[in-house]
Amino acid sequence: MTKMAIMGYGVVGSGVYDIVTKNADTITDKTGDELKVKYILDIRDFDDHPEKHLFVKDADIIAADDEVTLVAEAMGGATFAYEFTKKMLLVGKSVVTSNKELVSKKGTELFRIAKEKNVSYMFEASVGGGIPIIRPLVNCLAANRIQGIYGIMNGTTNYILTKMFKENQSFDVALSDAKRLGYAEQDPTADVEGFDTMRKISILTSLATGWKAECDKIPTEGITKISAEDVACAEKLGCSVKLIGYSKIVNGKVTARVCPMLIPSDCPLYGVEDVFNAILVKGDMVGDVMMYGRGAGKEATASAIVGDLMDVVRHKGVFDKNFSWDEEAENGFADSSDELNAFFVRCEKTKAEIEKVFNNVKFVNGCDNAFVTEEMTEKEFEVKTASLGGILSKIRVYK
Amino acid sequence: MTKMAIMGYGVVGSGVYDIVTKNADTITDKTGDELKVKYILDIRDFDDHPEKHLFVKDADIIAADDEVTLVAEAMGGATFAYEFTKKMLLVGKSVVTSNKELVSKKGTELFRIAKEKNVSYMFEASVGGGIPIIRPLVNCLAANRIQGIYGIMNGTTNYILTKMFKENQSFDVALSDAKRLGYAEQDPTADVEGFDTMRKISILTSLATGWKAECDKIPTEGITKISAEDVACAEKLGCSVKLIGYSKIVNGKVTARVCPMLIPSDCPLYGVEDVFNAILVKGDMVGDVMMYGRGAGKEATASAIVGDLMDVVRHKGVFDKNFSWDEEAENGFADSSDELNAFFVRCEKTKAEIEKVFNNVKFVNGCDNAFVTEEMTEKEFEVKTASLGGILSKIRVYK
Repeated sequence: MTKMAIMGYGVVGSGVYDIVTKNADTITDKTGDELKVKYILDIRDFDDHPEKHLFVKDADIIAADDEVTLVAEAMGGATFAYEFTKKMLLVGKSVVTSNKELVSKKGTELFRIAKEKNVSYMFEASVGGGIPIIRPLVNCLAANRIQGIYGIMNGTTNYILTKMFKENQSFDVALSDAKRLGYAEQDPTADVEGFDTMRKISILTSLATGWKAECDKIPTEGITKISAEDVACAEKLGCSVKLIGYSKIVNGKVTARVCPMLIPSDCPLYGVEDVFNAILVKGDMVGDVMMYGRGAGKEATASAIVGDLMDVVRHKGVFDKNFSWDEEAENGFADSSDELNAFFVRCEKTKAEIEKVFNNVKFVNGCDNAFVTEEMTEKEFEVKTASLGGILSKIRVYK
Repeated sequence: MTKMAIMGYGVVGSGVYDIVTKNADTITDKTGDELKVKYILDIRDFDDHPEKHLFVKDADIIAADDEVTLVAEAMGGATFAYEFTKKMLLVGKSVVTSNKELVSKKGTELFRIAKEKNVSYMFEASVGGGIPIIRPLVNCLAANRIQGIYGIMNGTTNYILTKMFKENQSFDVALSDAKRLGYAEQDPTADVEGFDTMRKISILTSLATGWKAECDKIPTEGITKISAEDVACAEKLGCSVKLIGYSKIVNGKVTARVCPMLIPSDCPLYGVEDVFNAILVKGDMVGDVMMYGRGAGKEATASAIVGDLMDVVRHKGVFDKNFSWDEEAENGFADSSDELNAFFVRCEKTKAEIEKVFNNVKFVNGCDNAFVTEEMTEKEFEVKTASLGGILSKIRVYK
C-alpha cells in the first residue's frame, strides 16, 4: 500500500481526494498497489467531511511520517506551496502538482532536490489541465527535435475571444459574461494579460530544451487591446484570433512569446473554441501534432494529478531527468528582435498612404485601412508604423 | 550500450534506422544510454547501403545473439512478423512495433509471452502513426474510466472524404486522385472498406478495457457507398462525413463499430481534414480529449517506434501490464442491436411518405428526401425503412 497526503483541499485537491477514493479499484488494478490518503493539509476546518480525521493544519506532521511517500500539492501560488513542496522532497517524498506558477518559478531548484533525493516531482496537470501534454512531449515525441510549440492554454481568454468572434461582442461585454459564468475570476489580470499562458509556455519550452526558459525573457501581451473590429477583420481574412503562447526552437536557441495571433482556418488551432485548450507541437520527424481538451476544471485537472500519482506508484517514484530541466542555458534565447512575423494592422490611414510605407500588403476585403504585412522584424515594423504616423491595432499572424 | 535489430527495411524500418543514427546524440542524452543498430533483417539486398554489413536474411542470427536485447519490427502483416516477433520475445528480447494487424490479431498471445519473459512489447506506432495515443490513454488518462473512443484513424479515407466534401467530387474520382498522389494503394480495400480502422479501434478498445476486443465482433462498413449527394446534404446540415472507428464502454460492456458518420461542426473531429488523423477519448473525469496529427508516413511512424525504443531503454524493458490485454471477457460486448443511433437517410420518397413512417425527422434544408431520424435501434430503423420501401443511403450521426 502507498500512503499519500493531499496539500490544499480546494477545488483541485478535493477532486484528487474524490478520484482516489471513488476510483480506488481501477487505481489498484492498474498500479498493482493500493493508494490511500493518510492526510489532508488545509488551514480551514472540514468538520462535516466523512473523513475529517484525515485533516491536519501542520505540514510537519506529514513530513515526519515516514509511511507517507507521496504527496499531491494542490495549494497554488509559490509561497507556502514552495516551502511545503521543498520540505516534502527534502525528506524523500515524491510530489505531484498542478501548480504552474510554482513549477515555472521554482522548478529548477525543486528538480535538483528531487534528483538528490531520487524521488519524483511530476506536473502533468500544470499545463492544459487534464490534456495529456507533458508525457507525450517527453516520451512519445522523444525521438523528435522539438522545433515549435504553439498553445491555446488559457480557457478564460479563449472563451472571451470566442464570444467576440461568434457574437461580435466587445472585450468588456465578453469578460463580464465570462465572470458571470465563473470562467473568469473577479480579478482576471493573470488570464487576460497573458501571465497564466506565459507560465505554461515557459514550462513546455523548458521541457523541450532541457533548460529553464525564464518567464521574464518571454515578451507577454494579453488580449485587453483586442477590439470587436479586429476580430471582425480577422474573420474576413478567414482567421480567428487566439491568445497563443509559443516558442520556436532553432539550432537550440529559443524565441518565445505570448500574444494574440491571427490563426488561419487550415491550422488546427483555428477552431479551438470556448474554454477548450489545445497545444500544437512541431517535431522534426512527426510534423504537427496537437493535443486538445478542457484545460481546467476540478475533475479534469485532478485526473491529471492522479495519473501522475499512479505513475509514481508504478515506477516507485524514482527521479526521471527527462521530466526536469537545468538552469537557463547561456545564450539560450535568440535575439527576439530578429524574429520574423507578418502583422495584421488596423489604422486610420488611406490605402495610398499605407501602400507608400508597407510593400506587398494584403488588404482586408471591404476594409481599406486593415491589412496584413509581409514578414518583417519587430524593428522594421516599428520604423514603418512610425513613418505611417501610428496605428490602432497590431496582431501577429500565425504561420 | 543497448544493441538492437530492425526487422524489415521498408519505408518504416529505414525511417527507424535514419532516426536512430541521425538523432543518436539526443537519444543518448535522453535515455542515458547509447542505442546501436547491430542487425537489419530483410530478404532483399542492400549492397549500396553505407552499413551493408548490418544486413542479415536469417532471423535466427538475431535471436541467437545475446548482445541484442531490443528489436524494432517494421515488417507488416501477421505471418513472418508474427513468427519472428514470437521468436524474439521467447528468447527474452523486447520488441517494438508499428504493426497494427499483428497487434490486433496476435497481441494477446504476444503479451503473454512478453509477460512470462518479463520483456516489453510496445506498439505506440500501431495507431495514429506518430500521434501520441497509446501512452496518453494508458498513463495520462489512467485515473479515468474510459467511456468512449472515436477516431479518424485512416488517412486514405479521410483524404477521399475531404475531397468529396470540399470539391464535391465523387468517391471514384477522389479515390483516383488519392492513388495518383500515393495516399491510396493500388488495392485500396483495407482502407476504403474500413479494415485498417477496425484493427486500430480494436487495439484502443482492448487497451481501454484490458481484454481483447476481437475484430470479428466489430461491425465494419467502409466509405465506398458514400455519394457526393450524401456529403452535400451533410454539409447543409452543418456536418462533415468521416470514417469513424468507435467504441462506447458502458458498465464495462463494449459497443464497437467502424462506419461513416455525420460529424457536427461543434465536435473537434469535424475539421480533421486530408490525411490527418485524430482520436477523441471520453474519460469520466477529463471529459473529451483529442490527439491530432499525421497518422502515417515514414518519419512520423518511425518517430513513434523510436519513442518506444527509448522508453524500453530507459525502463530496462520490463513488462508493463497496462500496455497489454487478456483474452476476450465473457459477455464483454453489449448486444449491438440495442445501440441507439440517429440516422441520416436519403431516399426517393416524398416528405409525406417519410413523415408517415418516421417520427420527428429533421429534413435537410432544400432537400425533401434527405433527413435525420431521432435515436433508435438498428432493428427499429430497419423495420421503418422496410415499411418505407427502401432507401438510398444511411449514415449514423455522431452524438
